Amino acid sequence: MKQLLQQFIDTRAYTEALCQPLETEDYIPQPADFVSPPKWHLAHTTWFYEEFVLVPHASGYKPYHPKFRFLFNSYYNHVGSRTARASRGDITRPTVKEVFDYRHCVNKYLEELIPDILNDDKIVETITLGINHEQQHQELLITDLKYTLSLNPLLPVYQEGYSLVADTRKAKGYIQIAAGNYNIGADNDGFTYDNEHQKHQVYLNDFSISTALVTNGEFLEFINDGGYNKFQYWHDEALAWLNENQISSPLYWQKMDDKWHQYTLSGLIKVESEAILAHISFYEANAYANWQGLRLPTEQEWEVAARQFSWGKRWEWTQSAYTPYPGFKIASGAIGEYNGKFMVNQKVLRGASTATYPGHSRVTYRNFFHPHLRWQLTGIRLVDDSHK
Amino acid sequence: MKQLLQQFIDTRAYTEALCQPLETEDYIPQPADFVSPPKWHLAHTTWFYEEFVLVPHASGYKPYHPKFRFLFNSYYNHVGSRTARASRGDITRPTVKEVFDYRHCVNKYLEELIPDILNDDKIVETITLGINHEQQHQELLITDLKYTLSLNPLLPVYQEGYSLVADTRKAKGYIQIAAGNYNIGADNDGFTYDNEHQKHQVYLNDFSISTALVTNGEFLEFINDGGYNKFQYWHDEALAWLNENQISSPLYWQKMDDKWHQYTLSGLIKVESEAILAHISFYEANAYANWQGLRLPTEQEWEVAARQFSWGKRWEWTQSAYTPYPGFKIASGAIGEYNGKFMVNQKVLRGASTATYPGHSRVTYRNFFHPHLRWQLTGIRLVDDSHK
Amino acid sequence: MKQLLQQFIDTRAYTEALCQPLETEDYIPQPADFVSPPKWHLAHTTWFYEEFVLVPHASGYKPYHPKFRFLFNSYYNHVGSRTARASRGDITRPTVKEVFDYRHCVNKYLEELIPDILNDDKIVETITLGINHEQQHQELLITDLKYTLSLNPLLPVYQEGYSLVADTRKAKGYIQIAAGNYNIGADNDGFTYDNEHQKHQVYLNDFSISTALVTNGEFLEFINDGGYNKFQYWHDEALAWLNENQISSPLYWQKMDDKWHQYTLSGLIKVESEAILAHISFYEANAYANWQGLRLPTEQEWEVAARQFSWGKRWEWTQSAYTPYPGFKIASGAIGEYNGKFMVNQKVLRGASTATYPGHSRVTYRNFFHPHLRWQLTGIRLVDDSHK
Amino acid sequence: MKQLLQQFIDTRAYTEALCQPLETEDYIPQPADFVSPPKWHLAHTTWFYEEFVLVPHASGYKPYHPKFRFLFNSYYNHVGSRTARASRGDITRPTVKEVFDYRHCVNKYLEELIPDILNDDKIVETITLGINHEQQHQELLITDLKYTLSLNPLLPVYQEGYSLVADTRKAKGYIQIAAGNYNIGADNDGFTYDNEHQKHQVYLNDFSISTALVTNGEFLEFINDGGYNKFQYWHDEALAWLNENQISSPLYWQKMDDKWHQYTLSGLIKVESEAILAHISFYEANAYANWQGLRLPTEQEWEVAARQFSWGKRWEWTQSAYTPYPGFKIASGAIGEYNGKFMVNQKVLRGASTATYPGHSRVTYRNFFHPHLRWQLTGIRLVDDSHK
Repeated sequence: MKQLLQQFIDTRAYTEALCQPLETEDYIPQPADFVSPPKWHLAHTTWFYEEFVLVPHASGYKPYHPKFRFLFNSYYNHVGSRTARASRGDITRPTVKEVFDYRHCVNKYLEELIPDILNDDKIVETITLGINHEQQHQELLITDLKYTLSLNPLLPVYQEGYSLVADTRKAKGYIQIAAGNYNIGADNDGFTYDNEHQKHQVYLNDFSISTALVTNGEFLEFINDGGYNKFQYWHDEALAWLNENQISSPLYWQKMDDKWHQYTLSGLIKVESEAILAHISFYEANAYANWQGLRLPTEQEWEVAARQFSWGKRWEWTQSAYTPYPGFKIASGAIGEYNGKFMVNQKVLRGASTATYPGHSRVTYRNFFHPHLRWQLTGIRLVDDSHK
Repeated sequence: MKQLLQQFIDTRAYTEALCQPLETEDYIPQPADFVSPPKWHLAHTTWFYEEFVLVPHASGYKPYHPKFRFLFNSYYNHVGSRTARASRGDITRPTVKEVFDYRHCVNKYLEELIPDILNDDKIVETITLGINHEQQHQELLITDLKYTLSLNPLLPVYQEGYSLVADTRKAKGYIQIAAGNYNIGADNDGFTYDNEHQKHQVYLNDFSISTALVTNGEFLEFINDGGYNKFQYWHDEALAWLNENQISSPLYWQKMDDKWHQYTLSGLIKVESEAILAHISFYEANAYANWQGLRLPTEQEWEVAARQFSWGKRWEWTQSAYTPYPGFKIASGAIGEYNGKFMVNQKVLRGASTATYPGHSRVTYRNFFHPHLRWQLTGIRLVDDSHK
Repeated sequence: MKQLLQQFIDTRAYTEALCQPLETEDYIPQPADFVSPPKWHLAHTTWFYEEFVLVPHASGYKPYHPKFRFLFNSYYNHVGSRTARASRGDITRPTVKEVFDYRHCVNKYLEELIPDILNDDKIVETITLGINHEQQHQELLITDLKYTLSLNPLLPVYQEGYSLVADTRKAKGYIQIAAGNYNIGADNDGFTYDNEHQKHQVYLNDFSISTALVTNGEFLEFINDGGYNKFQYWHDEALAWLNENQISSPLYWQKMDDKWHQYTLSGLIKVESEAILAHISFYEANAYANWQGLRLPTEQEWEVAARQFSWGKRWEWTQSAYTPYPGFKIASGAIGEYNGKFMVNQKVLRGASTATYPGHSRVTYRNFFHPHLRWQLTGIRLVDDSHK
Repeated sequence: MKQLLQQFIDTRAYTEALCQPLETEDYIPQPADFVSPPKWHLAHTTWFYEEFVLVPHASGYKPYHPKFRFLFNSYYNHVGSRTARASRGDITRPTVKEVFDYRHCVNKYLEELIPDILNDDKIVETITLGINHEQQHQELLITDLKYTLSLNPLLPVYQEGYSLVADTRKAKGYIQIAAGNYNIGADNDGFTYDNEHQKHQVYLNDFSISTALVTNGEFLEFINDGGYNKFQYWHDEALAWLNENQISSPLYWQKMDDKWHQYTLSGLIKVESEAILAHISFYEANAYANWQGLRLPTEQEWEVAARQFSWGKRWEWTQSAYTPYPGFKIASGAIGEYNGKFMVNQKVLRGASTATYPGHSRVTYRNFFHPHLRWQLTGIRLVDDSHK
């Protein structure tokens, strides 16, 4: 494992590297509630260190700006009031340059502090959480940005050759897992989130799981078969969602001259049949599985099987709801708000994606989103109960 | 087990008995999407027999009225289009009397048919489903009615002495369940729903579960401690729900002259401290458990433990999301729409309530509602992981 | 002029006569904010007498029921709080029969009181206002009822032969009005509303106005020419309204087997080409006039010209906004709320309709509705500025 | 009158001068439907010249960018589809710099074209319309910007000393206008909008009108008297608006330490008692007048009287709805969409404001906004019918 200081420096630098192709204007808009502006990600990941490390632990540290605590808090009620979730795109000041200055100032303090606190487990743990927190925001930053740029009729190119979705599928086949009791959840080795704790036993039935993710071409067969209009494959509230939002293909797809195209961060491209599907909701993933006569895995099945296949290109929808593991306890104080309060009405996703920071993933990692959301690099892996 | 014909007759009669205290006017309104008018319940439970039993199996049977299929279908997409869910209260004709005539006509056909088809398992199964279906609607009918009448400033009395919520708690204490593998789900003995199938193994950790449900008095302590305003006990979306709906007490509660009262079907009464709490959402149940430092059971824990305590007065919120059991398959055709398509964004409730038809409950029964709904007789049972 | 007592008796009886064909169920629903249930009209017109005549002027009179003041107040803030406008359809009690009892009781008191107060101008004026108020509600009662019944897939018949819309147009042609100063507004002869006061001068330019209302056949030419899709004829917010509500024909019209039909109180009938158009919004009236290269009259033009043509079958949209006349003063107290507080964002309609109580109209009468509403018997009369 | 070329150059330069204090970030957000981003104003006013002057009249001219027609059209349906009104803040490219390049390129073409077309009345008229159009957008640009910056908790300063609202009232008193016929509307001397045409006669009663606008101090008396809570002064829909938006003071006002402050473009300042009130809706203006026992003028009264008092600091709400003048005809083609299609549900404002381009006002000018809007520099002038 890299040393803490180097991890900190690398992660901080990577966020800024992601922003390198941006124009100042790109840092501002928030076109949907679930999206945050790049400027906000830059500032909020900085605020986290200031609030939870520098203010309590760097003696004599004074907050960089008295209002930043309000401006760049995300959802920590313990910390006080904050900018309304949907209003982040209205805030033009501080400027982008001022936010970079803020980052660099906090970086300097952290880089001085870290060598001195390496024996203080509590502070090391908080900084490690800050690093992981920023890595999560890197993934959001780039997927939020894709969503914003996609709304522009000019279809702007973020960076030539940077597509996130151009992965050709290689492997194919099913592996079988035998019924029995298995261990699920994280050991206390290395950093893990509270929602992965604690290791516990589950009983699983026999099942077979695909070693491959569903491709665009396979999903096109579902579309071409009229799958979006066949009610029997869909949840009741999925039908309402389809109708209200007039949805009949994955996010970013559009038909031009009778050919399917998709917006990517390198511009509009043709939908590649062999590439792995991305940007579908849980509703679509589940309907597709029903149409195949198969099903999505539970998160426990996924975790047990994942040691035997390659994963990490798509966040994979499971049929599991995001609920607490046995023995889960909300930590006290603001850090305790990290995960527990979202444990209702969301679905667990397992794996990682091509937008995930290298190393920011593990077989026990639990990601979660509301079932209708599609702007993450979400994909489908199928389970076959009849397969031998 | 009662014979099928007698079950049919009794269930049909019980629905009408529930309506006996009503005025014609009471059969009409639908003040919320989740409520249906009594007239609609009367007709829809009749339509079910007509659509799934008489039309396919009674030779020469002609539908009672060509438009009733449209008017009284609930959500079966296979059967065709239907009255919009939220518009049931706009339909004044057929009149209440005409709906009773419709019921009696269909009853007559069924009563003639049943003795002739007792050896046809498929038809018996469908009629049995019809009977259970009507029993579910009986519970909805009376709780929907309570909701509607509660909105009337005259606070109408449905029937003197009929309160649904006046149950004093007797037992108290915890029972302990040992870790291990347990069987969950229904055997094929007697009628059960597809969502209870099939019996399967789960592993459970040690836990202790209360033999008693939470009382009004206990919940009042939470209120008096400012529980509704302490964000740390609530899910993030629960806070939005509280704020948007200005909620600070269970449904039907109001403070008058500094004393808590609640609307019941026998009118406005004082909140009895020793009576079992009812009409709270999952959000409130979960927040209360957090405040106590305890938690709600999973549905599997509940099912394993329920053989050792008395239950059946409240539907009890569990922390489990409503997802399919291992091996769950959606049946083909309209009957297959019964349960599977609701398996997202809902919570499982276990038990039964004082509004449940006698016998319409069992330890494997899975009820389900969205987490914000409160108009059912919902209650709280707590689990203590530290209890010995 | 009929004597006050007889007017009172006749008006009260006519309301009940309108209800004679109804089933009890029909008295309950409120399918839209702008509609009130028949039961509510029956009770509210009674409450008006109780609140403004009996309570202040009948010595020793005790309100019939302590909660009726809350239940059946419409919008008089001076009188206190009231049932929310949109919740009138949720109130099942008092029953219809009890509301009729309430009416009859108040009738009896009024019939005793009236002979004794004929010399008290103030009370006579208030009772006269009550009579006119009830006549307005008669028109609403029958048009609200039409709206409610129209939503029922059974297309119920209120009464055979009672259609409201089957008026064949007779006259045709234009009359010309010369430029000059004219008097507008009501003298103090006979009952008039405060919004018609006071008589004042206006200057009008030359104009020619049609003696005929637009027919269904003429409006069909607009439809067939694609008028609903030609943006240049519509107000900007009309385009949003068309799109949001998917409107492409008058209210109650539907095409069946390629023929236009319309729902009427005697059931579904074919659209008669020669009959006068009804049930269009101001937006549609204005777009039709633009398409014709003509325009709607102002209310002042209408009032000056109306002495020279026959009117009274449709409320006729004018291009005038509902604003106060010169010298208009809001009366003090609850009665003062009658008209003034609605004088924004509404359009004036002139004339009367086939649903208007006989005699409840005059050339100075100002009716008013929001420009998107269509459930009244609204029609179109055109002005031609170039006509000679 | 300045020559056309100089007018063009000055107006184009003034728009850019208004933007001089901005950071790049300030050009992007659109926090409300009625607001447009500065970048959009800059581009749209340029597009107008390109679309209506260069493309039809500059031989061989090719549009600067094929998508700009879509991106920067505002509401001209004749010209084709366009960016959704509410999505202007989502568009980050073209960058601000690219938009300035676009402006300068179009400027160059116009500056070359203008000297050659001075004898072509039609083109001169269109360019003159373009200049006036840009002047309108200048006022919107600065008031939109104020609205956006006001939402930032940092309360950014646009420019020290630039407040728009710091006008101390000087004059005081009433002038009296005698009853009679008056001419209203524009002569064809100099540029005027189609909505001011054509000159026509009206009859007015006697009235007295204040020479002074209402001050902050006078409006504070209304607030302190509980005016926002006294229903009798408000329109019915104003009460709903107050309640839904929790409004109890003018826009930008807030109480701090028991003192009223207001956000201005030079930051937060104390509310000056002697300064003229701004940022109130028609509802508030009308309620204030009612509270005073006075009323707002009609637009005709204002126009007749305005020659006798000083005006131009606030747009003044009138009680007149925005409807067409006698003889108003919508011009054919896209230019015809300029005014007519907004003539419903809006109120006329007369005068001008401290944000209006010098000279962009005249006594016949008709501005118009929906009655609830407050972000313009709106004010109150009172009429007294009893005054002698």
